[in-house]
Amino acid sequence: MNYRAIVHVISMLLVFLGLGMVSAGTVSQLQHDAASCSEGFFVCASLTLVVALLGGLISRRRKGEREYKTGVREGFAAVAFSWLLASVFGALPFYYIAGMPPADAIFETASGLTTTGASVIAETLTLRHGQLLSGGLESLPDGLLYWRCMLNWFGGVGIVFFVLLILPLMNYGKSNQLYNAEVPGLKTGSDQLTPRLLSSVRLILGVYMLLTFLATAVYWLGGMEVFDALCHAFATVSTGGFSTKSNSIGHYQNAFLQWSVIFFMFISACNFSLIVKVFITRKFLFFVDEEFRVFVYLTGGSSVLVALLLYANCPAGIPGMNGTISRSVEPFLRTAFFQVTSLISTTGFATSDYMQWGLSPVLLILWCILFPCGCGGSTAGGIKCSRFIVIFKQMHSEIRRCLFSRTLSDVRLSGHRIEQPLVNKTMAFVLLYLLVFLGVAVTLTFLVETDLQTAFGAALACLSNVGPGFGAVGPVGNYAWLSAPAKYLLVLTMIAGRLELYTVLVLFLPAFWKR
Amino acid sequence: MNYRAIVHVISMLLVFLGLGMVSAGTVSQLQHDAASCSEGFFVCASLTLVVALLGGLISRRRKGEREYKTGVREGFAAVAFSWLLASVFGALPFYYIAGMPPADAIFETASGLTTTGASVIAETLTLRHGQLLSGGLESLPDGLLYWRCMLNWFGGVGIVFFVLLILPLMNYGKSNQLYNAEVPGLKTGSDQLTPRLLSSVRLILGVYMLLTFLATAVYWLGGMEVFDALCHAFATVSTGGFSTKSNSIGHYQNAFLQWSVIFFMFISACNFSLIVKVFITRKFLFFVDEEFRVFVYLTGGSSVLVALLLYANCPAGIPGMNGTISRSVEPFLRTAFFQVTSLISTTGFATSDYMQWGLSPVLLILWCILFPCGCGGSTAGGIKCSRFIVIFKQMHSEIRRCLFSRTLSDVRLSGHRIEQPLVNKTMAFVLLYLLVFLGVAVTLTFLVETDLQTAFGAALACLSNVGPGFGAVGPVGNYAWLSAPAKYLLVLTMIAGRLELYTVLVLFLPAFWKR
Repeated sequence: MNYRAIVHVISMLLVFLGLGMVSAGTVSQLQHDAASCSEGFFVCASLTLVVALLGGLISRRRKGEREYKTGVREGFAAVAFSWLLASVFGALPFYYIAGMPPADAIFETASGLTTTGASVIAETLTLRHGQLLSGGLESLPDGLLYWRCMLNWFGGVGIVFFVLLILPLMNYGKSNQLYNAEVPGLKTGSDQLTPRLLSSVRLILGVYMLLTFLATAVYWLGGMEVFDALCHAFATVSTGGFSTKSNSIGHYQNAFLQWSVIFFMFISACNFSLIVKVFITRKFLFFVDEEFRVFVYLTGGSSVLVALLLYANCPAGIPGMNGTISRSVEPFLRTAFFQVTSLISTTGFATSDYMQWGLSPVLLILWCILFPCGCGGSTAGGIKCSRFIVIFKQMHSEIRRCLFSRTLSDVRLSGHRIEQPLVNKTMAFVLLYLLVFLGVAVTLTFLVETDLQTAFGAALACLSNVGPGFGAVGPVGNYAWLSAPAKYLLVLTMIAGRLELYTVLVLFLPAFWKR
Repeated sequence: MNYRAIVHVISMLLVFLGLGMVSAGTVSQLQHDAASCSEGFFVCASLTLVVALLGGLISRRRKGEREYKTGVREGFAAVAFSWLLASVFGALPFYYIAGMPPADAIFETASGLTTTGASVIAETLTLRHGQLLSGGLESLPDGLLYWRCMLNWFGGVGIVFFVLLILPLMNYGKSNQLYNAEVPGLKTGSDQLTPRLLSSVRLILGVYMLLTFLATAVYWLGGMEVFDALCHAFATVSTGGFSTKSNSIGHYQNAFLQWSVIFFMFISACNFSLIVKVFITRKFLFFVDEEFRVFVYLTGGSSVLVALLLYANCPAGIPGMNGTISRSVEPFLRTAFFQVTSLISTTGFATSDYMQWGLSPVLLILWCILFPCGCGGSTAGGIKCSRFIVIFKQMHSEIRRCLFSRTLSDVRLSGHRIEQPLVNKTMAFVLLYLLVFLGVAVTLTFLVETDLQTAFGAALACLSNVGPGFGAVGPVGNYAWLSAPAKYLLVLTMIAGRLELYTVLVLFLPAFWKR
């Protein structure tokens, strides 16, 4: 194992994280937080940058060494430990400024970086100088609110890099083909960083920033203050879901704003390469993509179904996060679309608490959409629609084969044939996903006293990087009440889910650590 | 489609069912039930036999026709419709004698024939002549109690036939290899009923009857009356779980009896070909079989874990079906072993209501063991241990392949290599199973007002042919409160689960019905 290469990657990452802290400190000053807050950020930034510098020194190239000799294992280790260490260093401001216990600070950071958006921030918080804040998120210094959303955004960038840059370099090979076969420059499992690849990554990053800018502008036009608009844009584009308000988007009783959040959540869960292609080809080719079509049908269908069920069963309106939502077509449709899009895109914003709707069919529909989630090549978590399409087609072909034994299975995605080994890997992935989900839920019940719905809900919400789950971790609940071991378990779950399982699970193979 | 062949098979089945009714009528007379009860059985038997006769006449071979021309489709249709029609005709006594509504009568029968053991018999029942019975199962005429357990036993025979005789004839081919590769005479997917195959089926049937006899004798020695012993033996050996007592086995506060029920439930969930082999080779070769080993570890491990959790968390003892179970080692161990074995063997007897234990970790463990369930080639339902072993090994091999891309996957069961297409079919099966499970649970919430745990519990308990589930359909609950459409849905679920999904799902392919 070439440890220097790994340390090198992580040091680079810490530099970016440190610069992020500097920006948070600056925002903190601009928003007139208490001086201790912005100072805190600069202290944390210094510490992070010093560690990064030391890491850079240790891992610098030796004389005559033009590039690091790395293999698959270094790739896996670098990615997994990057996310882990970023969660630890990113937690410094929470620990230092907000005085959160380590488990809480790391949970909040990992939740941010994995774009999960699960929070442990309860109603009251004690700041470092003994100042007591009560009243939830609103009483936090703006710097910390910004830092939470910044972590979301950072994680979003990270995952775009991971999916489009790192995965193809790893032995992951064809598994990747599943969702970015069509990214320009990524056609074949190339082994090297080609200039063409780099330019397309720059393009994708540009689109990511453009989306952030557009979302900020639209949210601002919709009535948010600039600061809130920026923070929410960070959390939307990354499908993270951290908000600056205790009532999340429900704070804003504004139809235009809520519909625009729905739009940006939806767009952010689509394959980024589709958006990039619009810029390259200047044609709107979204519907050519089978995964996009399925994602549209799934989101639209579930939303309409949920709206109908709400309309039929809630004659007195439904409880919103901020007053009752009256029973008429637009608000009900908006609430349904918001909750469905928020969950399926794994963002996790809320305008209403579905746990209070008291409708089992709706809850089950929401449960079901937490598995497929968004499209591949996006910042969304979960199993991804494309994988579901593949396994559905494979199941259909297996049923057919009972009748016609000589039929060869021919699974296609957007017309392209998916090779059998990739279909197998996809099936194994989904089974593994369900197994980890079940395993985490079972372990949770051992680590903390809880009911089954909450255990399953927390496990799935973290594994799929959604954030709010069901039961006590629903949209108005939080993860503060969990025991520290349970929080660490969920940190690992979030990271494993974010890195598509294999990347993390491979570390548990004894063969991984052998020479 | 050769409809005559299908009618022929079903007519033969109805003859057996009619003879079963005659035996129930005789038992009813021997046990001194009201005369109307035994008469009712003879009326139902006559009707069934007349229909069987008509079916036989319609479907008789034409002149010069030596055997029916049949293919795969006829096989599938015959099996699926056999189970469906048997559920309808078997329901006659419930409808005619006990005056149950059609949905209830058919549910109870399908539950019996699929060896599920889910019941809709509530506290009160109105018999045909207006006589009101209250007090649950105990107040039913013995003839009907016998008929329920007889249905279990019948279904058990049916499934042994299905797995060992019908499946190999179908195009199912290698999927079958998974769990009865080692049945003498079934080595290769033979296309014909060979004399050797018939003799081994006779042997298996002999073992099935011997087990029934042994169980009856042991239960009788353990303190049951002969009638109850026979009925419980029927329900144990078929892993059905219908009891003659409202409190199930909990009625008998007798350690020897309960341990012997545990033993017979366990044995009945093992691959029958293993037991047959003991008779052929006169050697006890169980532990050579990997699936058996895993089944032992799974049952033992879960039981001990449940016992420990109970011991640690229930200082005041646990509520049994018939008085409190005091907190000492043997009763706790017995209760844990009983509940775990009952669920994992998909029998569904109970000595204590785990819903009242109030322990989330225990509930989750019980949830988890409802998926793998027993071994292949037994009367147990569920996904089967062997399939789980295969997918676990496949997942492990996929993780390894992230590191070593050129490794070929080499999944072995008891040392024999499982071909890749079979591994794929197994993965697709498990995914299909989970999908059907989820689909049924979602549909249930639309058909009847219920909480999530009950919906999931009922779906899984019926799909895995267990019987008692979780929530309102737990060990002391029943299925009487469900709406008629929900009951019919669960009837289909039980049959689909019993026939290993593909057999039923294939009927939904348009291609199945084309010429």
